[in-house]
Amino acid sequence: MIGKRKWVIAEGYIPPDDPSKPRDMISHETACILNATPREAHVRITIFFADRNPAGPYLVTVPAERTLHLRFNDLKDPETIPKGTDYSSLLESDVPVVVQHTRLDGRASNNALLSTIAYGEL
Amino acid sequence: MIGKRKWVIAEGYIPPDDPSKPRDMISHETACILNATPREAHVRITIFFADRNPAGPYLVTVPAERTLHLRFNDLKDPETIPKGTDYSSLLESDVPVVVQHTRLDGRASNNALLSTIAYGEL
Amino acid sequence: MIGKRKWVIAEGYIPPDDPSKPRDMISHETACILNATPREAHVRITIFFADRNPAGPYLVTVPAERTLHLRFNDLKDPETIPKGTDYSSLLESDVPVVVQHTRLDGRASNNALLSTIAYGEL
Amino acid sequence: MIGKRKWVIAEGYIPPDDPSKPRDMISHETACILNATPREAHVRITIFFADRNPAGPYLVTVPAERTLHLRFNDLKDPETIPKGTDYSSLLESDVPVVVQHTRLDGRASNNALLSTIAYGEL
Repeated sequence: MIGKRKWVIAEGYIPPDDPSKPRDMISHETACILNATPREAHVRITIFFADRNPAGPYLVTVPAERTLHLRFNDLKDPETIPKGTDYSSLLESDVPVVVQHTRLDGRASNNALLSTIAYGEL
Repeated sequence: MIGKRKWVIAEGYIPPDDPSKPRDMISHETACILNATPREAHVRITIFFADRNPAGPYLVTVPAERTLHLRFNDLKDPETIPKGTDYSSLLESDVPVVVQHTRLDGRASNNALLSTIAYGEL
Repeated sequence: MIGKRKWVIAEGYIPPDDPSKPRDMISHETACILNATPREAHVRITIFFADRNPAGPYLVTVPAERTLHLRFNDLKDPETIPKGTDYSSLLESDVPVVVQHTRLDGRASNNALLSTIAYGEL
Repeated sequence: MIGKRKWVIAEGYIPPDDPSKPRDMISHETACILNATPREAHVRITIFFADRNPAGPYLVTVPAERTLHLRFNDLKDPETIPKGTDYSSLLESDVPVVVQHTRLDGRASNNALLSTIAYGEL
């Protein structure tokens, strides 16, 4: 049952990009969530902004013994996350999971990448 | 009340860059601070150098349930941080927060990015 | 005996790339494993996917006081890891080790890099 | 007295590069060490390789309330670290410090960057 139940990604920013690019090359921001347990994980995501109330909760499930590379770009319900805007995210799961943060910035002619383990608790 | 009260970013370096670039593309270094608590966070920042006494304290506030993506480039009081100079930073908050470090290096024709969770304690 | 026995890299993705490139420049994903102990480390790796059962175990050894920069591209037994596919990895060692994750993405004319300490337990 | 006394950077690789480049742009690998304590830090570094015995110890000092962005490229005594070679490093300090790892890869026409907090203990 490796992992923790609460995770924070303090950095968040989806670069504005050309929407006609292919899915693997368009700028995106991802929370990679591993659920190595034998039980389905129910993950509740809250998005924090600089100057407005938080958005969410966004509800996602990660099946037992599966990984989900969740793009913040794809979150629609209850609202999309605006491009070019600073945010942070809090992920709360009912079973232990591990969360890693990755961004591909494809605005220039070559890509830039960043990644870090998120901050986990409990 | 997720987070810790003391954070260190041991890497620090603001690449010298062309000041006429737009704000989202000019080289910058950021401390992304999430305050997920219901209380305002008062954060005291100290900057350490290789060969002189520390600078600061710099005082910033992060409202309750808000994120602040603080650019070290923007710190002015008590003094600006010189470009092209090695430094480290210590952030001390009165409520638990989470800190992630990001740099965009835009000196070349394409951007390079780095990011990591900071080192947290207490 | 520095380190931990269980490590997770939640992000995993080997960019599809030109197989004629030299080994140091072709896109690859690496788990850097340090065994600073005086005993050989036996590491068992499980790969998790989004939509199928996990693959593995992959068995690797790291000699005493040696480092292994293991490319996921090189894992063959019991099966290769498909390119362009989301995955996560779990590494379990019988002695304490330290694991760091790095990717070189060489698809564009210039390289992009990411790295992070993995998530460790026990 | 923030920090820990033992740190590991499991990833290590100094890209071979053109030695005529300026110091800030040539490929390099750095251990950023913050000593926020009021006492001088004596740091002992051991370098681990894939297929030979460890090198070191390398001895460096970080003055009280100072940062040292130590380039592995600059280590000479007892021996230089070969370029283009996989390694890992262990840093042991007599006072608590914080260590972050950064690489600038300048082999292509544009730079790539990576950074991560190191793995700390005790």
